[in-house]
Amino acid sequence: MTDTATGSGAVPRASFDEIRRLMKELPQADRGAGDAARARQAILTKPAGSLGRLEEIAVWLATWQGRHPPRLDRVRVAVFAGNHGVAARGVSAFPAEVTKQMVANFIAGGAAINQLCRAAGAELKVYEMALDEPTADLTQGPALSEEDCAGAMAYGMMAVEPGLDLLCLGEMGIANTTSAAALCQALYGGEAAEWTGPGTGVAGAALERKTAAVATSVALHRPHFGDPFEVMRRLGGRELAAIAGAVIAARMARTPVLLDGFTCTAAAAVLCAADPGALDHCLVAHVSAEPGHRRLLARLDKEALLDLGMRLGEASGAALAINLLQAALACHAGMATFAEAGVSDKAD
Amino acid sequence: MTDTATGSGAVPRASFDEIRRLMKELPQADRGAGDAARARQAILTKPAGSLGRLEEIAVWLATWQGRHPPRLDRVRVAVFAGNHGVAARGVSAFPAEVTKQMVANFIAGGAAINQLCRAAGAELKVYEMALDEPTADLTQGPALSEEDCAGAMAYGMMAVEPGLDLLCLGEMGIANTTSAAALCQALYGGEAAEWTGPGTGVAGAALERKTAAVATSVALHRPHFGDPFEVMRRLGGRELAAIAGAVIAARMARTPVLLDGFTCTAAAAVLCAADPGALDHCLVAHVSAEPGHRRLLARLDKEALLDLGMRLGEASGAALAINLLQAALACHAGMATFAEAGVSDKAD
Repeated sequence: MTDTATGSGAVPRASFDEIRRLMKELPQADRGAGDAARARQAILTKPAGSLGRLEEIAVWLATWQGRHPPRLDRVRVAVFAGNHGVAARGVSAFPAEVTKQMVANFIAGGAAINQLCRAAGAELKVYEMALDEPTADLTQGPALSEEDCAGAMAYGMMAVEPGLDLLCLGEMGIANTTSAAALCQALYGGEAAEWTGPGTGVAGAALERKTAAVATSVALHRPHFGDPFEVMRRLGGRELAAIAGAVIAARMARTPVLLDGFTCTAAAAVLCAADPGALDHCLVAHVSAEPGHRRLLARLDKEALLDLGMRLGEASGAALAINLLQAALACHAGMATFAEAGVSDKAD
Repeated sequence: MTDTATGSGAVPRASFDEIRRLMKELPQADRGAGDAARARQAILTKPAGSLGRLEEIAVWLATWQGRHPPRLDRVRVAVFAGNHGVAARGVSAFPAEVTKQMVANFIAGGAAINQLCRAAGAELKVYEMALDEPTADLTQGPALSEEDCAGAMAYGMMAVEPGLDLLCLGEMGIANTTSAAALCQALYGGEAAEWTGPGTGVAGAALERKTAAVATSVALHRPHFGDPFEVMRRLGGRELAAIAGAVIAARMARTPVLLDGFTCTAAAAVLCAADPGALDHCLVAHVSAEPGHRRLLARLDKEALLDLGMRLGEASGAALAINLLQAALACHAGMATFAEAGVSDKAD
């Protein structure tokens, strides 16, 4: 079930302008499919609205798959892994080599995401992105060149192929909550300390170093924040750019998306600065214990499906939420109507 | 997968004193099994605590099953159905005959709970409790005799049998949120309006009638609130008493319990008035949209696993949360340790 693809050598050439052009062609909501789902919900044997967000999910799946009934036969979990030069500043509780070690753990089937994908019946793809070439230190200059950043976005697009009914996105990258916090401060303002949290578990002096790295990088790159693609290349990382690319490609393919936690959502949020509706086909699977995530979701006006104090990344929250979508669809497809079951409706 | 048992004629004879005696013998937490689960969590390939409540769940399952590793091979969902005399006061959006119609829908496999049990791989048992003999109107006198109430509790105990790894509890009964609100006001005080909500969807004059029914019944029965069993028989109903009985029996059998929404939790809460630790082996699966539920959970110091705006009852929230427990166990059992995976621990 687990399959891995390595990025080295396979990164496609792309430019920000090409991706900008693509973003002007994003498919919009299929209101007809959504209305058909809504109409069916109204006649199923339950008080109207009593399945809460399960009903919304069924409508959302129909709306963004562009068909009714929606399907969840093929669910992919894509985890992008990258390394960050800023890790050398001691901003993480774990050493940078853990990124590669955890990718090996994904391939061997020993990580949380492997168990969660198996439990959900989802296929797992792990994308290892030039782990031996960490990004440049964002406190000193841009993390990536335009070529590297656009290439990483295009590479992320390759995680989408025809026939996927749902794409779950996540990441692995020691020090990447530093990048995520910097992206959020660049996009939404506020103080570095408001967006910087413990990540894998830093506190005290390490947390101060991390907050300082965010503040320094945001101050350094501020003149370029008018362009969201510049924000991504200067403050992001390969796996974050790939997530943004995958979100775009999923939209083009009419594949709804489940976003994981803070880092994943921050990467996707960059697209909202280019097009406020760019994440309409995405649900946020869970709100992370990383404090910046709740703040970020408020800015995106997204309410997470789960709130379980998780902060692991590697798409774990997204994979856990697959079952909610499956359950929503099972109710939508399988329940009897009032007429079929001979149950008196409220209006009777 | 769906199986039903009917209550009529099969209700065992029991007395409150017998149940009181049973409650003095409740097994306590197995600290050894919980510690073993905690020790394993600490060496799995993830930052400590990063799976949030999934880690707590693994420890809780071990603690209350009294074994490590815990198992979830056999999960039962038990739905108790009863009718309520107070329905004649127009406190529900649906007519009383819907209880029986929905039981038929459960048996035919057309309800939400059928789809959710199938999705979770859980067995569903539906217990129809004398639907042609609604309880007496609690605004006029006790809903049940002691014999009926104790018999219903004992009947609920029969939902537990050896070998269950998890028991999910829920109910179906038109007008039973009126009973639940009255139970809560009796147990915790406050105003009737604080505990009374829309249930299946009442508003306006019907909601006023419902609130008045709660206030009237609580005023009428107040002299007897010193005895939680009297609270149950006067304000409860057969399906609520059965839930309380099932909670006790599950504790005796070392079967952890997932409670569903407002009505189910209110029924179980009666036991806390007899023994504050009576629900330690129970998790609350979800917080209902019924406003009294959040207030009730605060009184019980329980945090629900899910918050999805559901308010259907019939154990739907509990069944939906089974997957979280399965996922927690899959991670607990299947993840590699730092040593096995060759991943550098934080301490390295």
